[in-house]
Formats: sequence, C-alpha cells, structure tokens
Amino acid sequence: MANKEIPYKIYLEESELPRQWYNVRADMKNKPAPLLNPKTLQPCTLEELSAVFCTELARQELDDTTPYIDIPDEIIDFYKMYRPAPLTRAYCLEKALGTPAKIYYKFEGNNTSGSHKLNSAIAQAYYAKKQGLKGVTTETGAGQWGTALSMACAYLGLDCKVFMVKCSYEQKPFRREVMRTYGANVTPSPSMLTEVGRKINEQFPGTNGSLGCAISEAVEAASNLEGYRYVLGSVLSQVLLHQTVIGLEAQAAFRKYDEKPDIIIGCAGGGSNLGGLISPFMGEKLRGEADYEFIAVEPSSCPSLTRGIYAYDYCDTGAVCPLQKMYTLGSTFMPASSHAGGLRYHGMSSVLSQLYDDGLMTARSVKQTEVFEAAQQFARVEGILPAPESSHAIKVAIDEALKCKETGEEKTILFGLTGTGYFDMYAYQKFNDGVMGDYIPTDEEIKEAIDRMPKI
Amino acid sequence: MANKEIPYKIYLEESELPRQWYNVRADMKNKPAPLLNPKTLQPCTLEELSAVFCTELARQELDDTTPYIDIPDEIIDFYKMYRPAPLTRAYCLEKALGTPAKIYYKFEGNNTSGSHKLNSAIAQAYYAKKQGLKGVTTETGAGQWGTALSMACAYLGLDCKVFMVKCSYEQKPFRREVMRTYGANVTPSPSMLTEVGRKINEQFPGTNGSLGCAISEAVEAASNLEGYRYVLGSVLSQVLLHQTVIGLEAQAAFRKYDEKPDIIIGCAGGGSNLGGLISPFMGEKLRGEADYEFIAVEPSSCPSLTRGIYAYDYCDTGAVCPLQKMYTLGSTFMPASSHAGGLRYHGMSSVLSQLYDDGLMTARSVKQTEVFEAAQQFARVEGILPAPESSHAIKVAIDEALKCKETGEEKTILFGLTGTGYFDMYAYQKFNDGVMGDYIPTDEEIKEAIDRMPKI
Repeated sequence: MANKEIPYKIYLEESELPRQWYNVRADMKNKPAPLLNPKTLQPCTLEELSAVFCTELARQELDDTTPYIDIPDEIIDFYKMYRPAPLTRAYCLEKALGTPAKIYYKFEGNNTSGSHKLNSAIAQAYYAKKQGLKGVTTETGAGQWGTALSMACAYLGLDCKVFMVKCSYEQKPFRREVMRTYGANVTPSPSMLTEVGRKINEQFPGTNGSLGCAISEAVEAASNLEGYRYVLGSVLSQVLLHQTVIGLEAQAAFRKYDEKPDIIIGCAGGGSNLGGLISPFMGEKLRGEADYEFIAVEPSSCPSLTRGIYAYDYCDTGAVCPLQKMYTLGSTFMPASSHAGGLRYHGMSSVLSQLYDDGLMTARSVKQTEVFEAAQQFARVEGILPAPESSHAIKVAIDEALKCKETGEEKTILFGLTGTGYFDMYAYQKFNDGVMGDYIPTDEEIKEAIDRMPKI
Repeated sequence: MANKEIPYKIYLEESELPRQWYNVRADMKNKPAPLLNPKTLQPCTLEELSAVFCTELARQELDDTTPYIDIPDEIIDFYKMYRPAPLTRAYCLEKALGTPAKIYYKFEGNNTSGSHKLNSAIAQAYYAKKQGLKGVTTETGAGQWGTALSMACAYLGLDCKVFMVKCSYEQKPFRREVMRTYGANVTPSPSMLTEVGRKINEQFPGTNGSLGCAISEAVEAASNLEGYRYVLGSVLSQVLLHQTVIGLEAQAAFRKYDEKPDIIIGCAGGGSNLGGLISPFMGEKLRGEADYEFIAVEPSSCPSLTRGIYAYDYCDTGAVCPLQKMYTLGSTFMPASSHAGGLRYHGMSSVLSQLYDDGLMTARSVKQTEVFEAAQQFARVEGILPAPESSHAIKVAIDEALKCKETGEEKTILFGLTGTGYFDMYAYQKFNDGVMGDYIPTDEEIKEAIDRMPKI
C-alpha cells in the first residue's frame, strides 16, 4: 500500500535519471541463441558484426554477461531534453471503468519523434559519431524510427539516410517532412540507388515497397558508403538494452511511492518497447527478488508469439542481415494491408523470445477494431491520443482492470504507452468512419510462410 | 544569479499548481474599454453577454476589479492530466548560438490539443456543464482550438459542435479526425445549417470559408439550439484570465531557482497565449514591484499591433458579436492565403491593446521565412518541432540572445512555446522545398481595410 498520495504524474528529478542501462541477458539462465552469419551459419563474431554496426554497438549486441552498462554523459544530456518521462496514474480511466485496480502507464510520447524510439536512436547515433563515422543509414515504415534517428543525427551533426517504404513516403508525407526538417535524406524504397532496389524495381515495376526490402537497401547503402554504418530501431538486443531507461525510470518512480505493479503490459512488434519496459522488473524476477506477471500484446493480424514458431529465421527480405533465433511467422509473412495498427514485424526480439519460451512471460493477440475502441476510450478520459501500437497495451490493461472489477481484486497494473497517434490519423479516420475491419490470418497462411523459412 | 544548478526542465509539483487565475485588469490604471452591443452601441450588460456566453464566463468577461479568481477543483483535476507544464532551460540553443544570455521557454505543447488552448477550453466547458447546458458551439481554423474544446467536452460529457473553415476541413483532415475521435460534431463552414452560412454559400458559391464566417455560424447555431452557448478560444478577457496559469507557473518555477527573466516574449494572434504568459509579470510591473521588458511578436502579414489602429471594431464578419476596442487592421482585412504561420486574426485582445497603448509592452512583426528558419534551428537543437505560431516568439528570442552575444550582456530571456507543429507539416514542407514566400501588406491595403471599419 502507498504511504503518500500519488499524483497524476510522477516525474523523477533530472538527477534521478538512470546512469546505466540494464542488460537482462546477464541474469538469464537460458541465454538468447547467438546471431548466425547468413553465409557460414556460424555465430557472428565481433568483427563480422562490426562491418554492419558500429563497433561499440556490436559489442553490446554480443554482451550477454555484463548486467549494467554505463550510459555516456552525452547521451544523458540528450535524454534530459525529454526525460525523465512521466509515470502516470490513470485516475480518470480507473474512474470510467469503475475498477478497484490501480492503473499506471509509462508515457514515452512527449517528444517530437512521438515514441520511445528516441531512446535508442540517440545511443546508436552517439556511438557512430564517437567512432568518427560520417553518417548512418536505416529503413523506416510509417516513419517513427526514421524521425527519431533524424532528430538524434541533427543534434550530433551526423548525416542520416533513411529508406522509407514507398507507399508511406507517398501516402503519409508528414513524418517524411519531419525527417527533412531535421535534415535527413529520405528516399522512397525500393529506389534506384542500390542493387537490391534496382532488382526489385525491375522484378515488380510500380511496387509499393516493404520494410524487409527497405532494410536490405539500407544495409547495402551503408556498406557502399565510406564512413557509414547501418542502424536498426528494434528487435536487436542492443536496442532493448537502450530502451531499459523506460523500465528503470518506472521502477524508480514506483519506489518513490512504495508502490509495485502486479501486472506489466506492453505492446510487442519487434520488442523494443516491451523489452525496455519489463527488463528491470524481469531482472528482479530472474534473481528471485520479486514476482510479476508480464503480458506481451500483439496484433491478431501479425501474431508472432502466439502463433509463430521458435526457430532461426531471416530478419530481412534480402537475407543480408544475420539470422536470429526467435518467435517468427517467417520472413515472407506479410500482415494484411488493411492492418493499420503497426507492429507488423514477422519476428520478435531474441531476448523476449527466449523469456517467452521459458514461460517467464505470457502473450495475447488482440483485434484491431477492439484496439481502436480502447484507444478512443483512453483518449477521451485521459486526454492523450495514443499511437495504435500503444493501444494494444491499453486494450489488455482495460481487460485486466475489468477482471479486477469482477473479482474485486485491487491489482496494480502498469502498461507502456509508447507514443502518440498524431501521425496515424488515417487509421483513426477509418475507425471513425466505421470502415475498419479485422484480419486474422488462417492457419494455412501461417503454415505456408513458416514452410518457406530456412531449415536450420 | 541562481543559487542551485538549473535542470533542463523545471517541473512544479502537482501541489504547486496555481489555485487561482490572475486578473491583470484589476491592477491596470487604464482599464480596457468595455465591449459594445452591436445594435445599441452601449456597453454590454451581464444579461446581454449571458445570452451568448455562459453566465459565469460573462461575469468573468466583465470583471475588471477582482485580482484573483479561484480555479474550481474540477478544472484543477483536469489540469493535472497535462500540467504543471515544464519551464525549460534551452541549454542546447544557448550553446548553438554562443550567447551569454540564458534562454527559457514555457512549453504548452505536451497535450493532445498540441497547444495552450486547452487551458481555457476546459474552463469554458466546465462552466457550461455547471450551468446545466447540453453543449457548446465554436469555430476553428486549422483546428487547434476545436481540438482543445473537443477534448474538454469529451471529458465532461458535453456535446461539442465545431464549425471548421471549409478549406481546412478538406485540406487538413487530421485535426478534424482528432476532434471526431473525441466525439465532436465537425461541420465545414460555410454550411447549410445556419442562415448566415446559407447566405454566404449563395453569394459566393464554392467559397473556401473564413474564420469570421465560421464565428458567425457558431454564434447563430448556439442561439438556435436549446441549452447551448457559444465559446471562443482567444481575444476575450476571460480567455486571457484562464491562460494566466501559464505565467503563474512560470513565475513559481523561476522563484524556485531564484531566477527572474529580463525579457518576456510571446507570439500574438488574438493574444491568449501572450496575455496568459505575461499577465502575472505585468501585474508586478503595474504594482511597481519589478520591471520586465515585454515583446509581442506578430506576423508581418497580419500586423495588428505594429500597423493597425486602436479603435472599436467588429470581432467577426457577420457583426453578431460585441464590438471591441482593440488594435485592429479592420475586420475585413484578410492576410495573404500564402501565409502559413497562423496568427491570422485581424484584431488583438482588448487587455493587451490597452497595455500596448499605454507603452507597457512593445511589439515586433517578423516575416514567415525567418520564422520557419528559427523553427528549424530550434527543432534541431532542442528536439521539439514547434508550431509556426510559437516560432514567431522563437525568432525574436534568438534575435535578443544574439544581441546579448554582441554586447556581452547576460540577460535572462523567457518565451512562450505555445505548441507543437505536428499538424502543420504542409507549411514545413513548403519551407523544406524552398517555395515559401513572404507577404507584407502595402500601406494601401491596410488603409483600405481600416477605412471599411465602423466609425465609432
């Protein structure tokens, strides 16, 4: 029970910002399986990874033993522009639901990238700068990650080349303009700038592009440019590491008020937000210091944890990236184009996959119309228009709070509100107009994509 | 000089939220001139105003003697969802400019309406609810005010009818969708729902609409509906009163660190943000307790303070609203359609007009290309993509900081960062593409509009 009255928003002091990221792999008994070189099928060495990523990031990617890693001062200074992020008590939502549960959310949307992505973007840009690189390349879908990276690069004076999935580039021009305002070079993908892009354009004239193709283009572009490396906004263990500022801040905020969550909920696409939010709490669980219930929420249209298999798979379409053991639907799986809720990645972070396989975390899939219903309900009472991605977590948080209403239990629920939906109004419009549908892939579709996976 | 190290962001505690608004009129020797009834040309009575506005708001509009007015608890609870708003030290901007000046900004963009407008929206919606009304009507241009009002009404369960200028409704559908997500009824104006709308549609078939016309429609709609009143997001003295939470919080934050601004800068359209920011500081000046330099910044394309006259004028096109004595370019003045920076209103708050006329405040006009240059520079180093409106203040803050660089003075500069530019990316795109121009009305154009004003 809390001793002090809990405010709507708990802000840590600047001096209470985490000074170290927490590496949950150090406390895992079963470590995530190593990345494999796609050519040799042997575990990637530091040298191999350093050809793609900055050396320090490659080192973080491979480090599964060091529990705490110092956050450089320059990154902390950047964090101070938009962190500590508030841990918010959802008093109004609790009241609207009539639940005895206490609902909290960790809000990561109070920055121009509109999401938690900035936490890793600045880290990756910083190490690139420190290594003396000229710039970085990346891919982006709707543009959340690309925006975050553009912001970080503008701040550090680093060049930033973004391959943006063509249909988003053309149909959703606003995040593109945010990136351009931050000085990034944004190219619709597939482009004619890379071999893989030219090949795809030739094979599929007029194609709208895909994330997997944009990844392959960004990796190729980095390898062709002197002084460039490729960076990625999710899935990787380094990204989860940087994102642990989310969970560490939440933990510190709860401690200030002698509070403790019972259930921790996060949306899961590649896993960067969920991993960042739960890692520090999972660490307590792994060390036997506390117990929590963790729930990963994914869209029913792209259900990698709930309907995928745990196996080695490609991370990108062009198969240029290392292979990763993960829960996956197969790298050729494509969620229905009518799916507007984000979280479209076919696989899941190897760290989260292992934790899930070990039964340390549960997962649920939810339909997009019920996600938008939850988003609308939340927006109206809590005053924040949430990102569709984040709204997956809102939906399950509401479900859990309503369960408490039935049972009378006063559970404490924490969920990650990863961002805002200001650049997702096309999706909201569909919902407002009542023309949004649900799409659940058949067993057949999933089986076919899984059958196309590499057999390793 | 400060005694403690100043963090990037100063957040007050929830318990330090202002409990009273400050009514600067109480300390003004020369009171703002009274509103006039457009039919009788006599000062509006409480009864007359109560036919348009909620009674309590009409009372606030007329009250120029009570210095502090209690903020109802219900409004404070709503404020807690997004306030206290941070007072931010612009360390990175200072460094980028190489100035000895200390730059602070009070940031009002951390809420879904994206601006300070929510501070008055919740107050106006609250008094409407308390009076037992069913709903409110209003107009909106690009949609900032309409969004804020929709959010407040959704929270209180009040109906909200918004007349949105037709070209914005069609060309900028995103804020419209935010409003719909909050349950508001959004109608493109001119519509066929009101007499004034039908008349304008008949006179000018295919017209794009204007703010002045949307105001007239909203006023008419309210008067035709049982249990509705009209509400307005700027210009009025009641709105300035509600917005003083901005200045009161800034004052409290400065006091915590024994700091004090020398110069206070705000953008000025109708004056709600500027008035809210400066009022408490102006109060100190009026009472002889302290001195500050106040700078209102307006677009050179709509320069009411710097090139208008101080006289009675209509607030709306249809001349259904009370007449107000203010600095004005004439209610028929239309800023160039190429002007994308907001702040398009032809007049200025009567409170600010009087303060300006008394020499207590200065004003500057700035060109839109230099405004967007300042916006881009700010975004890149401070990590917030500002609203074009707010960027007017940024431009002058940078100018003043660069003056300090020349003279070596260590002035403390405060400006109001009223909001974010996430729904203004069309304007940013123009700027990014290098096709944004400047427009400065000729003396002739201004004279013509002023000549068309009522002679009172």
